[in-house]
Amino acid sequence: MTSHDHTENPAGPRLFVDATLAPGAAVALGPEQTHYLLRVMRRAPGSAVLAFNGRDGLWHARIDAGDRRRVVLAVETQVQQQPTAHGPWLAFGIPKRPALELILQKGTELGAARFLPVASARSQAERLNPERLSRIVIEAAEQCERLDLPEVSPVQRLGDFLDNWPAERALLWCDEQGDGVPLADALDGLFADEQAAEPRPWGLMTGPEGGFATGELDGLAELPFVTKVALGPRILRAETAALAALAIGQALAGDGDLPVRAL
Amino acid sequence: MTSHDHTENPAGPRLFVDATLAPGAAVALGPEQTHYLLRVMRRAPGSAVLAFNGRDGLWHARIDAGDRRRVVLAVETQVQQQPTAHGPWLAFGIPKRPALELILQKGTELGAARFLPVASARSQAERLNPERLSRIVIEAAEQCERLDLPEVSPVQRLGDFLDNWPAERALLWCDEQGDGVPLADALDGLFADEQAAEPRPWGLMTGPEGGFATGELDGLAELPFVTKVALGPRILRAETAALAALAIGQALAGDGDLPVRAL
Repeated sequence: MTSHDHTENPAGPRLFVDATLAPGAAVALGPEQTHYLLRVMRRAPGSAVLAFNGRDGLWHARIDAGDRRRVVLAVETQVQQQPTAHGPWLAFGIPKRPALELILQKGTELGAARFLPVASARSQAERLNPERLSRIVIEAAEQCERLDLPEVSPVQRLGDFLDNWPAERALLWCDEQGDGVPLADALDGLFADEQAAEPRPWGLMTGPEGGFATGELDGLAELPFVTKVALGPRILRAETAALAALAIGQALAGDGDLPVRAL
Repeated sequence: MTSHDHTENPAGPRLFVDATLAPGAAVALGPEQTHYLLRVMRRAPGSAVLAFNGRDGLWHARIDAGDRRRVVLAVETQVQQQPTAHGPWLAFGIPKRPALELILQKGTELGAARFLPVASARSQAERLNPERLSRIVIEAAEQCERLDLPEVSPVQRLGDFLDNWPAERALLWCDEQGDGVPLADALDGLFADEQAAEPRPWGLMTGPEGGFATGELDGLAELPFVTKVALGPRILRAETAALAALAIGQALAGDGDLPVRAL
């Protein structure tokens, strides 16, 4: 619940890799991860590492062959199976970069399964740097000990975003006008059916700085999967709204391995 | 729920001032606020401003006399009475500066009434810059349209912090070992007595980066006002834990003017 240093973990630092993980696999690391292991973490050949790729679970590995610029990991045994990803989706009107980066970093910690950046009348630049965003998500996943990597969807225009939203997934729309129902009440309604075989999947939408423009949300009320929700009496920054809503939703919907809370 | 530009408010930008606010009062602004009004917001003499001081509610005012370096506001009528402050307290092992600043900024938005920085074995520098912290809190209060200004308490050592905690205020201790009850359940227990004349005041504690040291929390379980709570299955950064816990707590305890949620 609070960050540890990687040094504290006796199984070694946790590293995301692209390669397939299986007993005996050899995984060559790039120069950045090599530098991190050898210089920042001061690990020597033979040292233990935990590796994950978002698909094959968590694995013990050791620093094996390789030179000072390209270490190779020898993959040993699986520590943890890949969990089924069932986190909520987090959609947001694209805010300024520092806010966007906080949403991705902390949204990953808080268990979002997918980020959906949306271009709207008042959103910021639509050209995001996918590599930078992906690095933020990977670092946050390593840090928070999460094995499934959230996806960052390509930017969609608001209309396309709504057209493409899967109707079976509830969309809790954080309404900056404040006339939605309190988020906690909306979630209680959504998860009230404890007899359901599976809880309904859900997601959140928050606006960019400045909110949505007049008329931009006409027709929203007719979409059967949308519930307008309110986050309280104060005006929250774009990134605060996204992260507060996600934290509240996770606490009430039953986050990750935690059971759905008895209501 | 999402940030607006101050320019959007027809009653003018919202400014925190130290002076007493009353009909006809003249409030001289310092050079920073003068610069903000005249240069950043491009306001001319005669323009409307909203002023608050954390004590006297919210007031209409106008830019009156003064020169380009020191504007004077003429205070006119009260728009809103000072609300009773009843927000939760947020205590935290002092994290690194960027995390500390996020806690103060977003904690203000989320309605914390008091911030209590705590020095512990793994906390960061105990010498905080009170002016800088106060500026962060004031800017966040202006932005989120909050009239009561949260206090930032002086740094206390962990033992003193616990000795000084008022026993009638519940302290929800975010336990990085994860063996507390889910926060939502603890809050349900705390606010279950809907017949109570006033809901019990409450606060949160989160650790610094690296958490608390072995032995540092011995005896915590004997304190009757402490409930250990868990925030979910992932390892949250220090500031993410503080803000997620505050958001969840506010949503369940009944934030600000919102009524306590029917359980």
